[in-house]
Amino acid sequence: MTGDANVLLEEISGIGVHPAGGYARPAFSAAERQLREWFVTHATRRGLDVETDRNGILWAWWDAEGTTGRSGAVATGSHLDSVPGGGNFDGPLGVASALAAVDVLRARGVTPRRPLAVAVFPEEEGSRFGVACLGSRLITGAVAPERVRALRDTDGRSYAEVSTEAGFDPESIGPDPQRLATLSAFIELHVEQGRGLADLDRPVALGGAIIAHGRWHVRIEGRADHAGATLMEDRQDPVVVASETVRALRARVLESPDARGTVGRFEVTPGGTNVIASSVDVWLDVRHRGEDIVRAIVADVTAATEAAAQAEGCTVSVTEHSFSPTVEFDRALRDTMAEVLPEAPVLDTGAGHDAGVLATHVPTGMLFVRNHTGASHTPEETAEADDIDAGVEALASVLEHLLLQPDASQP
Amino acid sequence: MTGDANVLLEEISGIGVHPAGGYARPAFSAAERQLREWFVTHATRRGLDVETDRNGILWAWWDAEGTTGRSGAVATGSHLDSVPGGGNFDGPLGVASALAAVDVLRARGVTPRRPLAVAVFPEEEGSRFGVACLGSRLITGAVAPERVRALRDTDGRSYAEVSTEAGFDPESIGPDPQRLATLSAFIELHVEQGRGLADLDRPVALGGAIIAHGRWHVRIEGRADHAGATLMEDRQDPVVVASETVRALRARVLESPDARGTVGRFEVTPGGTNVIASSVDVWLDVRHRGEDIVRAIVADVTAATEAAAQAEGCTVSVTEHSFSPTVEFDRALRDTMAEVLPEAPVLDTGAGHDAGVLATHVPTGMLFVRNHTGASHTPEETAEADDIDAGVEALASVLEHLLLQPDASQP
Repeated sequence: MTGDANVLLEEISGIGVHPAGGYARPAFSAAERQLREWFVTHATRRGLDVETDRNGILWAWWDAEGTTGRSGAVATGSHLDSVPGGGNFDGPLGVASALAAVDVLRARGVTPRRPLAVAVFPEEEGSRFGVACLGSRLITGAVAPERVRALRDTDGRSYAEVSTEAGFDPESIGPDPQRLATLSAFIELHVEQGRGLADLDRPVALGGAIIAHGRWHVRIEGRADHAGATLMEDRQDPVVVASETVRALRARVLESPDARGTVGRFEVTPGGTNVIASSVDVWLDVRHRGEDIVRAIVADVTAATEAAAQAEGCTVSVTEHSFSPTVEFDRALRDTMAEVLPEAPVLDTGAGHDAGVLATHVPTGMLFVRNHTGASHTPEETAEADDIDAGVEALASVLEHLLLQPDASQP
Repeated sequence: MTGDANVLLEEISGIGVHPAGGYARPAFSAAERQLREWFVTHATRRGLDVETDRNGILWAWWDAEGTTGRSGAVATGSHLDSVPGGGNFDGPLGVASALAAVDVLRARGVTPRRPLAVAVFPEEEGSRFGVACLGSRLITGAVAPERVRALRDTDGRSYAEVSTEAGFDPESIGPDPQRLATLSAFIELHVEQGRGLADLDRPVALGGAIIAHGRWHVRIEGRADHAGATLMEDRQDPVVVASETVRALRARVLESPDARGTVGRFEVTPGGTNVIASSVDVWLDVRHRGEDIVRAIVADVTAATEAAAQAEGCTVSVTEHSFSPTVEFDRALRDTMAEVLPEAPVLDTGAGHDAGVLATHVPTGMLFVRNHTGASHTPEETAEADDIDAGVEALASVLEHLLLQPDASQP
């Protein structure tokens, strides 16, 4: 219990191992339950007062000396769930570092003037029910509870069913402005999901912004036919058109520096080797700091897809599934963090985070820890032991600074 | 019972209807069993002697006047199974036309000098166990019985399991040269799977050849990564490479007149919207009358894929899954058929058929019936009532000619 996040992470390295490599720790799974119990054990062992709110978010409280109320609180934490095949750092690093930072603060003899909460947000990855940052979206009201209750996992089971089975009450989920009002700041530490720090040769960065991010569903309809008997000139093959979508996206994204565009989901119906497809569904994931640039890329790729579809005799429909504008983290908080950590560079991120969702309601900041491979959502993500320690020290220093500020709302 | 195949087809139009349109009539399904029972009923009603051989092929015999042996027999028929979403003609048209041709021969007062068999071949489409023309491959020894017993359907159930449950004995399957030796000819009537007859404005054609056909599995491996956080220059995205495979195949096939090339199966792993894929599997289906041209196309597409993979930092492996050389139907039999049907053009087909597999052991010919849309493996396939009647007449005339030849092996 001397602030060693490496030891904490090592403890959970055997939980939810994915047969194909990495981890599978979806919301409400046995693996995720085991991780939550591990968190409760460690929080309790540190004398923190653990509660689960009605959205399934865990809060472990270190109350301020001589106070009982929880106004002006500082919160830190991250998530414990994982995409299938993800690594051990994406999420758990922020939770383990928060617990370790509590140890560091105590070792430094800090007496907080505000309450500190270590928080764990459920279903951050959205890998079970398809909506990322589900816990933070629920508490902030960014997603409607009715919609969440009806979400289905890939087995066709609803959030309402699965959460009830896991002992939660799906009727009680939804916005919780009272709880958010108790927080004066939220700091999320996360393993970096790119090579920004590796390239700068630095261990820890401050988050600048989460760049704008949208997802579009492109449906291309052609005509199913026989792969052997149908002459090439008689075909209306949506796979040919969808391939042009992929090509156009890559080419167009390369024209806008720092843009990112991906097709990671490409589904062919009916999908037989000897059958010309009747339809293809592809999903575009496009991100850039400039929201207009994201929209311009999608418009150009849509136009290229439509041109290819017309040549092939196919039809196209494009539906926006989500669009998240650029989230700038709180400027005053970032300036404070920069005073505490003057060496830390400021990096934007292309990944979504609970911190980005909470930012609309609470002053929010992020810390990133170096990832030498830059890989993410794969077992190849990395965080070296020394960098993890540096992250814990940085987090503890930021928290110390914030916890020593007087709470204006306290008498 | 006056030679009306349209009426027979109408009777089965409600069996095995696919929820998404068309039919689903896989081997050993309730729908296929119902179709086999329908066949047995109609064959028995016509006084034909029905037997099921050890490979599950149904044979309905009209024995020659005054003979008991079955040497020198003439067989006709097709299949009753269907690809998911297929139409009502692909397969059943040949079976219904064979039954109707028996009626026509009787109405014409034909007294056969050779036995006639109406045959139904199981699992022609290969849509349940992945091997097309399974019945004809088993009886000819083109596939090993041990391999067939171990084949699995998409539910993971083996041929041995499923066939046992359906009341067959999987231990008895395999080559049956004695039975094949009793046949002097096999004629398969099939709905055309292209627009050859529609373009020529003719109702019925003779089969010339089944063009060479191969399937290749292309596996492209890249590196899973985060769709938002990974810079474009750091990606090894196999979806981008696989799209180039699709593009290169289309472009290369268009350079070889009459070649056909298709990617109908394109599978992305892990397949998440916000995850750069770790691998993509695509399958090439390539056909041409010239076997060398098929191989040249695949070599060029492989080279284009490898070049794209190298640029992206991915790796490629290409595996041949099957290769069927061009099958020329029996020349002497085709000349005989052409004497009987002097107006019928000769058309090659890009589709596989039991007639193509049997051709290595028995003189084999095919008749095609016009399909105005040219569509196949979709509910949009068509065969008009008049053309179906013309097909039955043509089949009856060919059979009449063959059945009136003396059987040299009979005393």
